[in-house]
Amino acid sequence: MKVHTLGGYEEVGRNMTAVETNGETVIFDMGYEMEEVIGADGEVNEMTTNDTLETGAIPKDKSIMNNDVRAIVIGHGHLDHVGAIPKLAGAYDCPILCTPYTKKIVEKQIEDDRKNIDNPVIAVEKGDEYNISDNLDLEFMHVNHSIPQATLSLLKTPEGDVVYGNDMKIDRSPVGEKTTDTKRLKRAGEEGIKLMIPGTTRVDDEGRCRSEASVAVELEDVLQSCYDAGGAVILSTFSSQISRLKSVIEANDGQRKIAFVGRSLKEYTKAAEELDLIDLSDVEVVSYFNECKELMDKVDGARDEWLVVATGNQGEPGAQLDKIASQTYPFKFREGDHVIFSSQVIPTPLTQANRYSLEKKMKEQGVRLYKDIHTSGHAKKEDHRDFIDFMQPENIVPSHGNIQKLGSYVELAREEGYSLEEDVFIGENGRTIEIE
Amino acid sequence: MKVHTLGGYEEVGRNMTAVETNGETVIFDMGYEMEEVIGADGEVNEMTTNDTLETGAIPKDKSIMNNDVRAIVIGHGHLDHVGAIPKLAGAYDCPILCTPYTKKIVEKQIEDDRKNIDNPVIAVEKGDEYNISDNLDLEFMHVNHSIPQATLSLLKTPEGDVVYGNDMKIDRSPVGEKTTDTKRLKRAGEEGIKLMIPGTTRVDDEGRCRSEASVAVELEDVLQSCYDAGGAVILSTFSSQISRLKSVIEANDGQRKIAFVGRSLKEYTKAAEELDLIDLSDVEVVSYFNECKELMDKVDGARDEWLVVATGNQGEPGAQLDKIASQTYPFKFREGDHVIFSSQVIPTPLTQANRYSLEKKMKEQGVRLYKDIHTSGHAKKEDHRDFIDFMQPENIVPSHGNIQKLGSYVELAREEGYSLEEDVFIGENGRTIEIE
Amino acid sequence: MKVHTLGGYEEVGRNMTAVETNGETVIFDMGYEMEEVIGADGEVNEMTTNDTLETGAIPKDKSIMNNDVRAIVIGHGHLDHVGAIPKLAGAYDCPILCTPYTKKIVEKQIEDDRKNIDNPVIAVEKGDEYNISDNLDLEFMHVNHSIPQATLSLLKTPEGDVVYGNDMKIDRSPVGEKTTDTKRLKRAGEEGIKLMIPGTTRVDDEGRCRSEASVAVELEDVLQSCYDAGGAVILSTFSSQISRLKSVIEANDGQRKIAFVGRSLKEYTKAAEELDLIDLSDVEVVSYFNECKELMDKVDGARDEWLVVATGNQGEPGAQLDKIASQTYPFKFREGDHVIFSSQVIPTPLTQANRYSLEKKMKEQGVRLYKDIHTSGHAKKEDHRDFIDFMQPENIVPSHGNIQKLGSYVELAREEGYSLEEDVFIGENGRTIEIE
Amino acid sequence: MKVHTLGGYEEVGRNMTAVETNGETVIFDMGYEMEEVIGADGEVNEMTTNDTLETGAIPKDKSIMNNDVRAIVIGHGHLDHVGAIPKLAGAYDCPILCTPYTKKIVEKQIEDDRKNIDNPVIAVEKGDEYNISDNLDLEFMHVNHSIPQATLSLLKTPEGDVVYGNDMKIDRSPVGEKTTDTKRLKRAGEEGIKLMIPGTTRVDDEGRCRSEASVAVELEDVLQSCYDAGGAVILSTFSSQISRLKSVIEANDGQRKIAFVGRSLKEYTKAAEELDLIDLSDVEVVSYFNECKELMDKVDGARDEWLVVATGNQGEPGAQLDKIASQTYPFKFREGDHVIFSSQVIPTPLTQANRYSLEKKMKEQGVRLYKDIHTSGHAKKEDHRDFIDFMQPENIVPSHGNIQKLGSYVELAREEGYSLEEDVFIGENGRTIEIE
Repeated sequence: MKVHTLGGYEEVGRNMTAVETNGETVIFDMGYEMEEVIGADGEVNEMTTNDTLETGAIPKDKSIMNNDVRAIVIGHGHLDHVGAIPKLAGAYDCPILCTPYTKKIVEKQIEDDRKNIDNPVIAVEKGDEYNISDNLDLEFMHVNHSIPQATLSLLKTPEGDVVYGNDMKIDRSPVGEKTTDTKRLKRAGEEGIKLMIPGTTRVDDEGRCRSEASVAVELEDVLQSCYDAGGAVILSTFSSQISRLKSVIEANDGQRKIAFVGRSLKEYTKAAEELDLIDLSDVEVVSYFNECKELMDKVDGARDEWLVVATGNQGEPGAQLDKIASQTYPFKFREGDHVIFSSQVIPTPLTQANRYSLEKKMKEQGVRLYKDIHTSGHAKKEDHRDFIDFMQPENIVPSHGNIQKLGSYVELAREEGYSLEEDVFIGENGRTIEIE
Repeated sequence: MKVHTLGGYEEVGRNMTAVETNGETVIFDMGYEMEEVIGADGEVNEMTTNDTLETGAIPKDKSIMNNDVRAIVIGHGHLDHVGAIPKLAGAYDCPILCTPYTKKIVEKQIEDDRKNIDNPVIAVEKGDEYNISDNLDLEFMHVNHSIPQATLSLLKTPEGDVVYGNDMKIDRSPVGEKTTDTKRLKRAGEEGIKLMIPGTTRVDDEGRCRSEASVAVELEDVLQSCYDAGGAVILSTFSSQISRLKSVIEANDGQRKIAFVGRSLKEYTKAAEELDLIDLSDVEVVSYFNECKELMDKVDGARDEWLVVATGNQGEPGAQLDKIASQTYPFKFREGDHVIFSSQVIPTPLTQANRYSLEKKMKEQGVRLYKDIHTSGHAKKEDHRDFIDFMQPENIVPSHGNIQKLGSYVELAREEGYSLEEDVFIGENGRTIEIE
Repeated sequence: MKVHTLGGYEEVGRNMTAVETNGETVIFDMGYEMEEVIGADGEVNEMTTNDTLETGAIPKDKSIMNNDVRAIVIGHGHLDHVGAIPKLAGAYDCPILCTPYTKKIVEKQIEDDRKNIDNPVIAVEKGDEYNISDNLDLEFMHVNHSIPQATLSLLKTPEGDVVYGNDMKIDRSPVGEKTTDTKRLKRAGEEGIKLMIPGTTRVDDEGRCRSEASVAVELEDVLQSCYDAGGAVILSTFSSQISRLKSVIEANDGQRKIAFVGRSLKEYTKAAEELDLIDLSDVEVVSYFNECKELMDKVDGARDEWLVVATGNQGEPGAQLDKIASQTYPFKFREGDHVIFSSQVIPTPLTQANRYSLEKKMKEQGVRLYKDIHTSGHAKKEDHRDFIDFMQPENIVPSHGNIQKLGSYVELAREEGYSLEEDVFIGENGRTIEIE
Repeated sequence: MKVHTLGGYEEVGRNMTAVETNGETVIFDMGYEMEEVIGADGEVNEMTTNDTLETGAIPKDKSIMNNDVRAIVIGHGHLDHVGAIPKLAGAYDCPILCTPYTKKIVEKQIEDDRKNIDNPVIAVEKGDEYNISDNLDLEFMHVNHSIPQATLSLLKTPEGDVVYGNDMKIDRSPVGEKTTDTKRLKRAGEEGIKLMIPGTTRVDDEGRCRSEASVAVELEDVLQSCYDAGGAVILSTFSSQISRLKSVIEANDGQRKIAFVGRSLKEYTKAAEELDLIDLSDVEVVSYFNECKELMDKVDGARDEWLVVATGNQGEPGAQLDKIASQTYPFKFREGDHVIFSSQVIPTPLTQANRYSLEKKMKEQGVRLYKDIHTSGHAKKEDHRDFIDFMQPENIVPSHGNIQKLGSYVELAREEGYSLEEDVFIGENGRTIEIE
């Protein structure tokens, strides 16, 4: 069995791994590198594949171009997992497999790029077995993350089973979905796992990842404190974080009218609504400029009656929160208004500068800030240890991180008895690892 | 009105403030400086007042020695508020006033120091009005902190009302007690507050302090994950954190037998039980060496049946957790056992070194660690803003911090319209501030 | 004596302090707040005084508008000390006093703002005594900083001597200037100092500020290593750091041709040359676009023959270093070219983001980076203690920092026997402190 | 060729690497893990090899026990390179090769451990070629570090040349020794290097390592400032840092009498004196308790006449600086005395706590502190790049660091065209890497 570590092995982002066995290849994920996306957003859609490759924003897949690729398996709908599909998938004559919610995002990606991608996008429900070829079967196992229907993909091959999932957590008190299916994982382990490809984003953090329900309590406390104090209340979170948005609606408990403001909020929540993952019947969802303007005008005149959820939690210039703070709309912050960030700042200098500028602008207008009401979607050290314990994989290729992060996972694996380059391996973009 | 800022104005710890009005003086708090306590613990009890004064561990109160002191008011039972009573209270011919739970701690302090202190210790229930003198009345208003029956003290004087409370938070989802009585605070504000003396410990942290209920969810998640994985489970938290201990008992939900191990755990929880603040009927509480040894022997033989709560969360050498990790008892950690720290490391180099050594010892024995399952007991920036908004004090003297922390509070006060040395003041140990 | 703390008491930047004695007032410094300058640079010149006041970029001087102001004394030529002159000085009918090099900068400031400022700008040599009025005399005492001819201003008044100097260091191995005149300072101390107004920028740093000569050795080592390796060498430092530029010329020692590229480099070095503070006879100084273009074209063709010193060490978009990295000129970086930052990144998120972007751009082109070859121009803790020891001032009002920094200075002053609000005071923009 | 990565591949410390070629093996270094040494110092000497192995303080060398080991090559005299010799060398029937200064340290190590080690210790001068066997030749090439006579070892084998050196820097302005012999390195490169084994300690730091001469200027500035202020002056640095001690003597320039106080200072400097590496004729060197006591008594009575250099710069309890601060000797610090740390705190919690306690003790006695007058002995990123450029090794196995540090070196190697597990490898204690 060969593992082609194509992207996400020297950075967080642009995930792409290909597993080759018996002459057949399956690709896992095709993502963007997040940092390159910031600032270059609009224009990337216009760029050719070759130009995009040169920017370093998408994985270099030349080494598997001539492989017999049978499927592109997408674990979940975040951009660092689906963002390169419009550029790269067309070169492979095979279907794209993913869960129904992810399918909606993949289709939107393809549509936005106005590209002639004709790979069929096939929705596979969790727990179903999908027959890729005579030799290959796929099952999406249920795990938690920070977007609906994230999966741990189980690929059955003649050489043994492969488990791929580089963004996941075990949430024992999730909101609006079930806990990670640890029984299924243990059963997979009992049947024998040849290879596991986990992510490493939070492997340096000791302990376990906090649950969504624990955050929901905090969110409710803060929201109630804002309502008690009075004034406008604006909240921002990641648009694909549907569980969080459900917690917000629940915490509001009918006390104020709710509006979702912004294009990505609309796209991700509408897609979720179509699959009955969220109830938007009491939410006003707006995205076009005039809609937003009209809505914020109403809020300005009745600031104690609205809870506004807006895009732009990273301080992105031009996103709704920035527009609101810059008085693009007929809405002005007043002393004592509230802005809640149900998110965490992505720790890159550019994002930190954006958030700093946004917060400065808001503070100067007298806004009270509530930050980091949030939990990660990524397994921490003891969660990762559980994944190893549950599935006892023969080999591990950690992914989704720079070499230091991959190394931190190796340290954990050593504690569990693995040895470097014997049964735990460090990838490199472009490296091919042979698994015996 | 004169404010004598005697202790806790150049450090976190050894709190002591005296308010003088119309020839009468009331003292608020008499505490230790925490760092001096570490390491010197046992011996401090043997030292004379003068020797202790020289170490810098207790406030220098010479400047008010000849005042007509009418009462010593203790806000809550933490050592940095009560620890200097055995050394200093005897010099004042007046009662010590505090809530019933604090009374138990104060009496223990006096007893442990084997000193001839004969100040009466009087328990005053929250909400009751206590008549200190013809001119002075005291009421304990309810606030949340991290120990039972913490208060915001309201002293009514002919020159106006004084509010003192330098360790408090607003917990909107507390465990085992009510939310801070914001209505009472607002009413106090309406009646007019001449002077407020708040603490500054967390004023630099934006937003609000997280609730105990939010931590309880996290605690339950982690505890359940340990039970699912199996093995010994040992948890450590602050012994006076009765709410947290209640959350632990509740999270356990009868799944394992519970033992509380250690002297301070016994003292604080037994005192709480006597006041019906916690139910220990299903908890085995041990403190003497042989009791602990016997208990840990039992745990060693039935590690899946016990949840042990032990003292020593800061890694204090000689505390129970350190004893257990050092194999003082007939108990040995095995690969996969669990230790949960429901606390935060106090950020001083000595404590950090202690914790580091303890964790290293445990990791080498294969223990899985879960850390920082915790929330602070201190108001953060927006909570502090609320206290100002609720009570609209004419003057503020922030306390309980070094000059940088006091300065941070001044920055907040400026945002609320106060000006330095006009109506917000920076204290200094030994300074007397005149309030007009 | 009254001290009006007008600017620089809640931030680093926009310094302005007025000392009032016997009905006469002297203003010290009129500066910008640095952060507001970033980004708003070009436009500030077009703004009215009132508009600028509203941005918060310049000090609010309303409270002394009707005072009898006799002189505006400028300590040195940095923007946070001279930047507000074009906006504010015109309101006062008095001369601006400064050293010859500072005079050149002040005149440039006024000229650039195209304002009708008619205050005479008078150059006073260090050591000379300038008669401001019958009662007031001024002497500039020599200290080191990071710009030529920085001073500690000694104002002699009937109520006692005032020493003002909020940017200074003691450099025992300076480059191109003398060591701080400690004998003069001690003599001033012996004659009695009523009030000292020091800066606080580095008071939190223990020890002493490193010397320019020590940096010069490091600079020479790095430069030589670049020459040995070959390739283009570009260096960037603060344009007003004339000592550093002298060290660069000396370290080069005729090995390569030197070019200074950029407007501010030209202005500051040409002003220095006119006063014989630097010898530019072997340096090609260019600033207009076509000059720069032509120069960089030459460098591109002979990269081993040139040492280019360019503006833009903070990564400012549009500055020369950014232009070069963005291939604005006919010059392309090659693998192995060198860029030396003889400076430190100003620790604000916006600057950090700019530098991050610039460095990323250069690394992608294969440039080798050498950073932080630098020392501060500010006294550290033990230097500050020396200033107190030398002059033994009766009263101190620390300036040039937020309240935490001012507080740190108070901590130092306490160690030297001062007490808060007795003889060491914390200013606030707009506060008036009475000195008895 | 096989590389056995035995120690120092999962930590900084206990370095040991064995290179096997054509049936012959050469061992490079046999060191302690520093952290285990702290606190366990005295007792380690009493422990058996097996007991020491179990503590994790020395490398596990079982896998090469039956190899035909021809030589143990020691790069320099620091404990993490020589500390395990008394425990491990006896098992190999071969000589220990090192430079003359290192030889003295190795012999002291063996003597202190009272072990029956009979490996001959052979001094080889830099530049000489030593014939290990018919097939193997060794040459020590000159590099800079932070101890005299540090080397880059060049082992000539039939399969190609091996270069080992995991603690080194390029100092272009060294003190008391020559600059790294870059010509020799380049020549080695031209002759072809099969394998390079560099250290990684500072590879994460951008730029170049600062020179000793640059520190010497800073040291002289600080020392002079102390002399000018008057009072006792005590300095502490690493005892093996002979260059630094030479700078101290030079900076003192006969102004005060100099004493070196402490056992390790005596050992390292006396060894250096015997090889004419330092002139101690004007230095009083004391180490026995009574000698130290007498000396400090003299200093107490004539504090303006002495410069004391004492051991204990890391705050080690019981070292001379701690003894002095604890008033073990008839010497008391007075307000305004000076302590200079010409070193950096090793960033582990235990060391930080020691230093914190020591500094606290001294500050309470009024001592003025000067810290971090220091440069590292380790190559930084661009120095490492130079080593690669000079020698162009076919393969690289970075050493002396945890997996994250080794990974950082791999990132650098990638920039220079290497690929993971093709020509740059990540070791693991116990791993054997095959080089083709």
